[in-house]
Amino acid sequence: MSEIDRMLAANEEWAQRFPGSKDVRPARKVAIVSCMDSRMPLFQMLGLEVGDAHVIRNAGGVITEDVVRSLTVSQHVLGTREILLVHHTQCGLQATDDNAFADLVEEATGRRPAWALRAFKDAEADVRESIRLIKESPYLLSRDVRGTVYDVATGKLTEVE
Amino acid sequence: MSEIDRMLAANEEWAQRFPGSKDVRPARKVAIVSCMDSRMPLFQMLGLEVGDAHVIRNAGGVITEDVVRSLTVSQHVLGTREILLVHHTQCGLQATDDNAFADLVEEATGRRPAWALRAFKDAEADVRESIRLIKESPYLLSRDVRGTVYDVATGKLTEVE
Repeated sequence: MSEIDRMLAANEEWAQRFPGSKDVRPARKVAIVSCMDSRMPLFQMLGLEVGDAHVIRNAGGVITEDVVRSLTVSQHVLGTREILLVHHTQCGLQATDDNAFADLVEEATGRRPAWALRAFKDAEADVRESIRLIKESPYLLSRDVRGTVYDVATGKLTEVE
Repeated sequence: MSEIDRMLAANEEWAQRFPGSKDVRPARKVAIVSCMDSRMPLFQMLGLEVGDAHVIRNAGGVITEDVVRSLTVSQHVLGTREILLVHHTQCGLQATDDNAFADLVEEATGRRPAWALRAFKDAEADVRESIRLIKESPYLLSRDVRGTVYDVATGKLTEVE
């Protein structure tokens, strides 16, 4: 059984205890932007129920054009007004850099990425940079944003001031 | 207390029952690409434990350059080999279209988005389009991809053939 087959089987159990349908508009009017890291179960980590908040995730939890697109939909079409950023300790993007990564991909595939990795060394500094990018975005209705770093060794979230 | 303050308070409870530190490389070598929709608690829906799989999410769960960047990091730096796509019923992106959305944002902010919304009408058709885009991506090490649609009214995931 492949890992995806195991996930589909686990979904049958979830459907049996499914808590019921919710509105498409997030009840708590929050959009979360976070890293894709496998160690962050955001619903459990933040006490979220089904229907509470949008969850946008990519490598690093960095603010890209795609994240701005998603936040713009979240606010204009689906009514969210607060933004929570979640970076974390021991991020894979801190262990490499844009050039080393491009070399790695080119060696393995023969193609050098046309896009930048967006690596960073300091998670807190990158949270502050993300806050700055959101404050500067011309498309949002609300720039009420707060940033945090999650410690993957303790489960504890710390706000970046 | 703001909604984000409530999430930070809930995190203190999570940290007390934190299951412990895991490796940065996902144990089950799977990356999931899903919509940001608030009704999809992916860890619970798929039976995932902390450390099992990468989770990439945006508006629609569509394959953008940022998703390709994230999948490339996931495979080349962090060792994943399978990809699971999760679209869903009643998606916010099915209720609008690229032009109507651009009008909406321009009316509210005075700025017309420089990027496309990536709206779609048929979730299954967009899953097939996503599979095609992944199969064509030159940067990946593995194109072992499967697609599903989640029914937000029942909690049930159905594979797209």
